[in-house]
Amino acid sequence: MNVPLISKLHEQITLSLASACLRTRSAQAFLYLLLAIVLFHAPAHADDGYDLWLRYKPVSGQSAKRYRTLITGWTITTRSATSDIIRTELGHALPRLVGNGISERTSANLPAHTLIIGTVDSPLLSVLAPQLKGHSGDAFLIRQQSVNGKPALVVASTTDQGTLYGVFHLLRMMQSEKDITEQLSAPRTQIRILNHWDNLDRTVERGYAGFSLWDWHKLPDYIDPRYTDYARANASIGINGTVLTNVNANALILTPQYLVKVKALADLFRPYGIKVYLTARFSAPIEIGKLPTADPSNEQVRAWWKSKIEEIYQYIPDFGGFTVKANSEGQPGPQNYERTHADGANMLAENLRPHNGIVMWRAFVYDHQVPEDRTKQAYNEFVPLDGKFLPNVMVQVKNGPLDFQPREPFHPLFGALRSTAVIPEFQITQEYLGFATHMFYQAPLFKECLDANTYTNGNNTPVADIIDGTAYDQSLSGMAGVTNIGNDRNWCGHPMAQANWYAFGRLAWDHQLSSEAIADEWVRQTFNNNPVVVKTISDMMMATREATVNYMTPLGLHHIMGWDHHYGPGPWISNKPRADWTAVYYHKADKNGIGFNRSASGSNAVGQYSKQVQDQFNDPNTCPEKYLLWFHHVAWNKPMKSGRTLWDELCLSYQRGVDSVSWMQHQWESLSGKVDKELHAHVSSLLAIQYKEACWWRNSCLLYFQQYSGMALPAGVAPPDHTLEYYESLEFPYAPGIRPRW
Amino acid sequence: MNVPLISKLHEQITLSLASACLRTRSAQAFLYLLLAIVLFHAPAHADDGYDLWLRYKPVSGQSAKRYRTLITGWTITTRSATSDIIRTELGHALPRLVGNGISERTSANLPAHTLIIGTVDSPLLSVLAPQLKGHSGDAFLIRQQSVNGKPALVVASTTDQGTLYGVFHLLRMMQSEKDITEQLSAPRTQIRILNHWDNLDRTVERGYAGFSLWDWHKLPDYIDPRYTDYARANASIGINGTVLTNVNANALILTPQYLVKVKALADLFRPYGIKVYLTARFSAPIEIGKLPTADPSNEQVRAWWKSKIEEIYQYIPDFGGFTVKANSEGQPGPQNYERTHADGANMLAENLRPHNGIVMWRAFVYDHQVPEDRTKQAYNEFVPLDGKFLPNVMVQVKNGPLDFQPREPFHPLFGALRSTAVIPEFQITQEYLGFATHMFYQAPLFKECLDANTYTNGNNTPVADIIDGTAYDQSLSGMAGVTNIGNDRNWCGHPMAQANWYAFGRLAWDHQLSSEAIADEWVRQTFNNNPVVVKTISDMMMATREATVNYMTPLGLHHIMGWDHHYGPGPWISNKPRADWTAVYYHKADKNGIGFNRSASGSNAVGQYSKQVQDQFNDPNTCPEKYLLWFHHVAWNKPMKSGRTLWDELCLSYQRGVDSVSWMQHQWESLSGKVDKELHAHVSSLLAIQYKEACWWRNSCLLYFQQYSGMALPAGVAPPDHTLEYYESLEFPYAPGIRPRW
Repeated sequence: MNVPLISKLHEQITLSLASACLRTRSAQAFLYLLLAIVLFHAPAHADDGYDLWLRYKPVSGQSAKRYRTLITGWTITTRSATSDIIRTELGHALPRLVGNGISERTSANLPAHTLIIGTVDSPLLSVLAPQLKGHSGDAFLIRQQSVNGKPALVVASTTDQGTLYGVFHLLRMMQSEKDITEQLSAPRTQIRILNHWDNLDRTVERGYAGFSLWDWHKLPDYIDPRYTDYARANASIGINGTVLTNVNANALILTPQYLVKVKALADLFRPYGIKVYLTARFSAPIEIGKLPTADPSNEQVRAWWKSKIEEIYQYIPDFGGFTVKANSEGQPGPQNYERTHADGANMLAENLRPHNGIVMWRAFVYDHQVPEDRTKQAYNEFVPLDGKFLPNVMVQVKNGPLDFQPREPFHPLFGALRSTAVIPEFQITQEYLGFATHMFYQAPLFKECLDANTYTNGNNTPVADIIDGTAYDQSLSGMAGVTNIGNDRNWCGHPMAQANWYAFGRLAWDHQLSSEAIADEWVRQTFNNNPVVVKTISDMMMATREATVNYMTPLGLHHIMGWDHHYGPGPWISNKPRADWTAVYYHKADKNGIGFNRSASGSNAVGQYSKQVQDQFNDPNTCPEKYLLWFHHVAWNKPMKSGRTLWDELCLSYQRGVDSVSWMQHQWESLSGKVDKELHAHVSSLLAIQYKEACWWRNSCLLYFQQYSGMALPAGVAPPDHTLEYYESLEFPYAPGIRPRW
Repeated sequence: MNVPLISKLHEQITLSLASACLRTRSAQAFLYLLLAIVLFHAPAHADDGYDLWLRYKPVSGQSAKRYRTLITGWTITTRSATSDIIRTELGHALPRLVGNGISERTSANLPAHTLIIGTVDSPLLSVLAPQLKGHSGDAFLIRQQSVNGKPALVVASTTDQGTLYGVFHLLRMMQSEKDITEQLSAPRTQIRILNHWDNLDRTVERGYAGFSLWDWHKLPDYIDPRYTDYARANASIGINGTVLTNVNANALILTPQYLVKVKALADLFRPYGIKVYLTARFSAPIEIGKLPTADPSNEQVRAWWKSKIEEIYQYIPDFGGFTVKANSEGQPGPQNYERTHADGANMLAENLRPHNGIVMWRAFVYDHQVPEDRTKQAYNEFVPLDGKFLPNVMVQVKNGPLDFQPREPFHPLFGALRSTAVIPEFQITQEYLGFATHMFYQAPLFKECLDANTYTNGNNTPVADIIDGTAYDQSLSGMAGVTNIGNDRNWCGHPMAQANWYAFGRLAWDHQLSSEAIADEWVRQTFNNNPVVVKTISDMMMATREATVNYMTPLGLHHIMGWDHHYGPGPWISNKPRADWTAVYYHKADKNGIGFNRSASGSNAVGQYSKQVQDQFNDPNTCPEKYLLWFHHVAWNKPMKSGRTLWDELCLSYQRGVDSVSWMQHQWESLSGKVDKELHAHVSSLLAIQYKEACWWRNSCLLYFQQYSGMALPAGVAPPDHTLEYYESLEFPYAPGIRPRW
């Protein structure tokens, strides 16, 4: 809202009314004066980002007129906790969007142009049932339709949940000043779920937006209103599940002391269509069950889990199930007892199955004691288990084979697991992407994975077709995102990071949406519909991914960030307890060149892909340059497509990354006065940090690699401000989001 | 703001204007309709408590009329960063309080009834200089005064800072609908300072309102607007200093990496009159100076501190100084090198002195290896050092001799140190007072200490006269409060806990204010001026201190809370590494009775007080019952003033505590509809927790003590819900605010 303008208008109307009072001495003028004074007292809050994409700012006069013609009132044909939510949302949104006077109608004789919301069970809407046939209950239909002989706009679904999604979609279209008269939408995946890496002490592993939303201490007695706004925001983008706890799990969450707290959240989230899930610590039978073992073949252990799961369902009848990190980075798991991941997952799954619960078993496993390229280990462990998991188990696979780097090729397990449901894990929180201080729009990263052709089932098998279940006819499908939400007022730390929460939800619903389209709708809802604003911010967003890859890890470089906290550059990281936690393990820079040889002549990680992919990646001359150093150790003076040497190309890529941030700063500056002032100032500060840190990455990485290349910086690359020793000496013991140690 | 009512009015006016448009087709009516629609879009934010006592809600029509007669416009005679703050605050506050149209005047020819703000240097206000003579620069005068022959209201001071305090006081009086025409106010203490026990990782020791406000990672580049609101709130109650870091200190804060961050905060706080202080880790010369020792007699160490302090002043020219916790609970200190507290404090002080910096050296020292009643140790260590501290050292003494219990007698160091400036340390955060879930208004606790007569300099030497410097003619005076501020949206966790921040500031300014008066003004500003609201909430607030003492630690009991986290009851705590960290050390319940004999026949802690106090406390028959078990081991069947036995009195005290909370719940319920709905719901939830926890305290303490008394619960005391074993079995490993371990 343009607060100064409104304030000015207030002042003028008050003064003119006061003069009218004196002139006419009419009671009406006095009434208006009084009202003007009262209205003036409405508090003018600066935009602190709390409202996310549900700001519901007034649309243009033209759009308002159009919508007010289509909707003169509204009615909900069903009665449920979910319809109460719809009622509240419309009551909140419509007056803000298009002004006052569009209210709920309850009479049976609805006037023309009523917005009718309900399920097709309702006689008013039953005519629409055929159009929703074959779609899941989450699907909705928005259309102009004659109802009882009068023109109406309808939002229909087969379920209450679907109507809620439809209403949020209608409001999204209105906020974006788009057409609202015709839309049939059905989600492409079933389980659209956030993973909170939140600990019980409210620290958040890899969390950069303050601390955990979940105030466990005060639950279940105090229900923070923020929990409701969290549920609203998720429902508005189709997210229907949330794992409340860290994958580095704590068994206490499974005790009654905590289950009553989990229940309070589950009860609140239920009418928003959001199921609650927990992380299961594999050794819980020992830690809270007081058993001597957690061996999945042990009868006592099996009985303990059966009883524990039944207990959970006593509290939460629609409990979603478990996410499990086992035998990975020190977490306990079935391999401690010489059992397989399938043995472990199935033990949980068989007890969840009667309650319609599922297991999401993470494939992020690797062991530094295994003498094998870390990126190959998940494939090696899981492919032999394909087909051995119960039907309510999904294997949760990160987008790439390493760990959420700015750029990775797609994970070779996509398409390799054919008899097992696979759910991809994207990281919305920016562990390796500049924390919450760098603007990094992640939709292009997510899409790069989703669109990648695995060639595993014919010539066109993109990852998207695997995870939506169509490629291998899976009955379970889904998408998981490690959330960037914390207790910062604006939820995600960086105002622009809200776009990543939004984009994740939208892509989980429909992976065919383009990054550009999602950016466009997010900007319109979050900022405004001014075409200059929409284009400028969308363009900035679309540029961020390549910018960051360039100033952090160009040309296929990876895992060269700071030790432990992952803040800033650290290509010099070596000599740590685990080689696969160092940088030198990955970049392998030496006087001959740089890069990890994963071709057939090296670790042969390429061998885990289908033949068509292998053929492309295995040859340094056909391998896309963006993956070059991921798959090949390349001579410093190898000529690149540009004609420049690898060294020059590397240097210029870093410089291009820095230049892109500088360009983003200028773009943003041009929006001064066109977007909310406080938001503008906030983003300006963060872009300045991003620029400083982009320079830091460029300077320290080039100084470090220059030791090996022995070559000069090419023209156009700014010389570093400090020595390599300086950059290496920097320490950040209190960088946020650091992994707590158990 | 009554949002539903405003919303209703909006709707009515919009509809009536629309009908007027249709009827008259007048352009004016259309304009009004348009405006009504625009105005409607003002977002209706629920009251989440963020605005503290600076809500500036509209005053009644009558008051508004009165104020608008007295103030028709305003002007500021000085130009400074502080006057810009005044300008912003008035521009924000006046329209909200009394409506629009009172604006700044800049012409030399000021009309009648201008509010004139400035220092007495200004020719317009120089006539007031004599009235401010002899007062500190923080003093201000508000009065009606003829200026250039025209009636005016003036806010004058000798400094910009004083004018800011005056303006905030004027706004406080207006919010409270009080008289604004005559006030001369001068602070009774010089250093009014908050202590943040905030760690660099943003955890807060004994913090229950989320995590640290200080986002060190993003400082200095990102300045959270919250820092400004923090400064405003503090300035509005006269707080002029803040110690940013935990007394369990981390030397890193003294490195350039962090000093640039501290500087950013100091620069922001400066025009609000708030100086920044840090905690100095005594071993910093070893940890960051790489010296082999931190011995204060070592020349290298002394040179290191000299240079470090000079470096700090390069960043922050008005740096306030250090708070130091040394040789206490594992912190390093001068005693590690066989030097005294005075040696340690003076080493820092002599280097701070040229820059006008001070040292606040904490007297909270005790050692479990010293075979002495813990409550006596601070006195024993510090009295011999009296007179040995440099003049810019203050000894910081907790209100009581133990540790912020619900009730303690005043600390015997008050009045015992006569040649040393003493600053009291109050704990605003509720470590032992139910965290941020119990409503506990602390002004009565603070006042009990301040009003306590030490009899050390004649028959009337209250603690207040010692700490304001008058009793022993000290040139330094002050009051320190361990703050309850965190990153929770409402700052303090419990909406009612804001009153404790407020009361601390107001008492530091004027320790003669009554708890009732402070409650009254806080309620008026925070809620509203409805007499029923003001009386009901004030009465509740005034009842909380005794209620909590009763359900936690009646009759002088102390330190019987849960182990380590201090959450909930733990009278059974024993067998810990340190006896003085157990409960049994303090209550000494056995079959003969209960209580710690600190009389002349026991530890003789009473001997540390003046004779008059000793005479009263030493005899169980004259010792006030509220301190009875603090000073005496008393038989279970000893008759009390009520005629009941000690056991019955104890039981009934616990029950009274529970009953008081129940009464508070009913009182609060009666305010439904009279205060903001969201705030009302929040407090209701917390009162329910407080009631549950009060019962928990009563049940577990009585069951525990009953083992020793062997006596039945008297009539009127509810029987416990669970067994003692149940209560003893409860564990809270993730209770908030737990002390991080170094």
